[in-house]
Amino acid sequence: MMLTHFDTKGDAHMVDVSDKEVTARIAVAAGWIRMKPETLALISDGTAKKGDVLGVARLAGIMGSKKTAELIPLCHPLPVTKVSLDLTTDPDLPGVRIEATVKTTGQTGVEMEALTAVSTAALTVYDMVKAADKGMEIGGIHVRLKDGGKSGRYEAP
Amino acid sequence: MMLTHFDTKGDAHMVDVSDKEVTARIAVAAGWIRMKPETLALISDGTAKKGDVLGVARLAGIMGSKKTAELIPLCHPLPVTKVSLDLTTDPDLPGVRIEATVKTTGQTGVEMEALTAVSTAALTVYDMVKAADKGMEIGGIHVRLKDGGKSGRYEAP
Amino acid sequence: MMLTHFDTKGDAHMVDVSDKEVTARIAVAAGWIRMKPETLALISDGTAKKGDVLGVARLAGIMGSKKTAELIPLCHPLPVTKVSLDLTTDPDLPGVRIEATVKTTGQTGVEMEALTAVSTAALTVYDMVKAADKGMEIGGIHVRLKDGGKSGRYEAP
Amino acid sequence: MMLTHFDTKGDAHMVDVSDKEVTARIAVAAGWIRMKPETLALISDGTAKKGDVLGVARLAGIMGSKKTAELIPLCHPLPVTKVSLDLTTDPDLPGVRIEATVKTTGQTGVEMEALTAVSTAALTVYDMVKAADKGMEIGGIHVRLKDGGKSGRYEAP
Amino acid sequence: MMLTHFDTKGDAHMVDVSDKEVTARIAVAAGWIRMKPETLALISDGTAKKGDVLGVARLAGIMGSKKTAELIPLCHPLPVTKVSLDLTTDPDLPGVRIEATVKTTGQTGVEMEALTAVSTAALTVYDMVKAADKGMEIGGIHVRLKDGGKSGRYEAP
Amino acid sequence: MMLTHFDTKGDAHMVDVSDKEVTARIAVAAGWIRMKPETLALISDGTAKKGDVLGVARLAGIMGSKKTAELIPLCHPLPVTKVSLDLTTDPDLPGVRIEATVKTTGQTGVEMEALTAVSTAALTVYDMVKAADKGMEIGGIHVRLKDGGKSGRYEAP
Repeated sequence: MMLTHFDTKGDAHMVDVSDKEVTARIAVAAGWIRMKPETLALISDGTAKKGDVLGVARLAGIMGSKKTAELIPLCHPLPVTKVSLDLTTDPDLPGVRIEATVKTTGQTGVEMEALTAVSTAALTVYDMVKAADKGMEIGGIHVRLKDGGKSGRYEAP
Repeated sequence: MMLTHFDTKGDAHMVDVSDKEVTARIAVAAGWIRMKPETLALISDGTAKKGDVLGVARLAGIMGSKKTAELIPLCHPLPVTKVSLDLTTDPDLPGVRIEATVKTTGQTGVEMEALTAVSTAALTVYDMVKAADKGMEIGGIHVRLKDGGKSGRYEAP
Repeated sequence: MMLTHFDTKGDAHMVDVSDKEVTARIAVAAGWIRMKPETLALISDGTAKKGDVLGVARLAGIMGSKKTAELIPLCHPLPVTKVSLDLTTDPDLPGVRIEATVKTTGQTGVEMEALTAVSTAALTVYDMVKAADKGMEIGGIHVRLKDGGKSGRYEAP
Repeated sequence: MMLTHFDTKGDAHMVDVSDKEVTARIAVAAGWIRMKPETLALISDGTAKKGDVLGVARLAGIMGSKKTAELIPLCHPLPVTKVSLDLTTDPDLPGVRIEATVKTTGQTGVEMEALTAVSTAALTVYDMVKAADKGMEIGGIHVRLKDGGKSGRYEAP
Repeated sequence: MMLTHFDTKGDAHMVDVSDKEVTARIAVAAGWIRMKPETLALISDGTAKKGDVLGVARLAGIMGSKKTAELIPLCHPLPVTKVSLDLTTDPDLPGVRIEATVKTTGQTGVEMEALTAVSTAALTVYDMVKAADKGMEIGGIHVRLKDGGKSGRYEAP
Repeated sequence: MMLTHFDTKGDAHMVDVSDKEVTARIAVAAGWIRMKPETLALISDGTAKKGDVLGVARLAGIMGSKKTAELIPLCHPLPVTKVSLDLTTDPDLPGVRIEATVKTTGQTGVEMEALTAVSTAALTVYDMVKAADKGMEIGGIHVRLKDGGKSGRYEAP
């Protein structure tokens, strides 16, 4: 099998999608950031009264998804038509679970946009509470759903 | 405890670091992307002959770290003086392990720059081999070492 | 009434426009920067012989309109098909009047692009003459005309 | 008087500040966005329960101030050390009043960063409630305070 | 003849392409960077064993082409559907020859994207070997082929 | 000789300049764009009455130099303290000659910023007159002078 991002000489290129159909595309990605229970308490309390960590991270995720083609070298630029992020505190993790949904009408999929949204939101949570907890871990970042386009529907098992 | 990124009213702000000392700063962050063994084989082979996935991801990580203050809303902009990334294939994961080292001389730490470098490199690996494997997972992203500045040296346990 | 930029839980999101029609869109926005008569004289003279303040500001406005989706968090990215700015000195203000016209063919309107163009041009005028006049004021920024799309034609009264 | 942003031939350039002293700088800028009372009510209510317009605009203002040197052609890039925005609803306007404070330690002032923060926050408020009110007006954008550097302290009368 | 980037008053504007047809577009641009034979030897050897100068420059060219509308003031933003660069060492130059191919489906041509790709790749080669050779020269940058759109096919003589 | 942008394993990295001295740096770069005499006439005339091609290109060059670290992967970000460009029409070329001067006080040189300024200005000239002349060529881009820092003064022969 050949990786499509390299030509026959092995040189990286941005794949030609000129002849791919323009179709409705959707991707959902998810991930989490794990922290100490007392750090999570700061976030849970903060959302209610002292400062909205999840609101800032949600916005960073939305804006980050618009920067995907700038960050990922061989990614095609495309105008997204919808981005939403869901951030929920999970005391069992303990930490914050993040899910991003991105849509477009175009010639390539938007799973990179969804993954970048999740990733940027997780980094933003880290930034905002790092003074309290340096040992946080970001993980579980994966594509949950992808649909539209020739390769069909994919759902994570 | 108060989160420093919010003022006394609970409003988000970029913390005032004007009076912090300008010191030499370093941060090391790490993470990984897990995939099927046959996907990893494509990367391992590719590096040698068909296309350098790890080289592209390394460069994306370096460039991504320069975009940290654009991505993370309350992060202070600062001119980094060194960025390096180490990407190694690990058949036991199986997948690619990523480590980033960032340095600066400034008034704030560079752990966000190191984490952003790791995260961008991992997303780039995902992008380049996603045609072969949609089930990859990015995880283990954490700060391994941070030094310089008032809060002193931190090493992950 | 609900604000469309928030979902039913009150979380900010980029509204889904996937199903909106692709139509020709136009928006015109206007604004001004007021200054001392002697500051305006520097600009009026400068345009002719010493330095083209209005030309620099016009260009900044055009380039600024291309950055709208980067600046406005929940704004949809879209490729503009025309941007023009009109800057005229007005001795009665006294100051500079700015009008921007933006067009696209897409799923959302371009009034934010037109407003951002006006705003960036006004800030650029401020920057270029601030050594002479710190008391300048930017104001009157509003949408003059918007057309195309489901909500129909809007003209400022 | 010559405008400093043009050389003796009248060509625009970025002024040489190499020999200016590195000093602590601060600037405060202000502005407002005026709207119908019922639009303001949507924001006031929304902040409490349905969606935080002011929180999104505050963040956009902070991130916008980091983009100042990209937007304003002849503006020197400099790493800001503090950015904060204050957004308050004013039923007498009626609308939202915005104030931004920016600090740095550098060779040029930060009034453009403060003005850009105010301007971006105002545009973001416009974007978020424009579905309800197309006739809003942004105005009153000016420098309230500037200190540090050779030209000394300036306070708006 | 009038230059299209200026209106009838002589003011710069972004030309209105709203009514141009959406067609398949391609452009090929080329250029080179000339250096001392011993500098070229460093690159040729490096590609094989010590460090891949051409691989880094190729990637920079691809990413640079995505920034064209940010760099060129009156250039229309458009989502490219393919970018590839070919970098080859030429002992007779001596130096590196660069060719870029860009495609899109849109209302304007992509020759600026191809030229920007070549230019960015050449600058990146310069950056990477400048410690060894300060006298390098970048030249021969031109459009080799342009097709699609109303003005028809152009091939450099 | 080893290229500094690669480590001992041959992997690209951003060189560590943390321990380099902060000194005053200057660089001058030059280049040209060659065109048909009648194309040059459009520019020469335009500058006077119909549209200021050189003014737009000068501004693009200044703004481009601020984007250098975004474009050149391994280039260190640094805040420039002066950028100026000189564009002159040369009937003997025939075409436009471009020279850029950049200064900073920092730990690395600014020749890449000067070269990027020249390159962006030349591309902008191309963009503005390409409707009249597709055969233009950009060339002669080199460093004319570099001073400050450990490696001392360099002047092109």
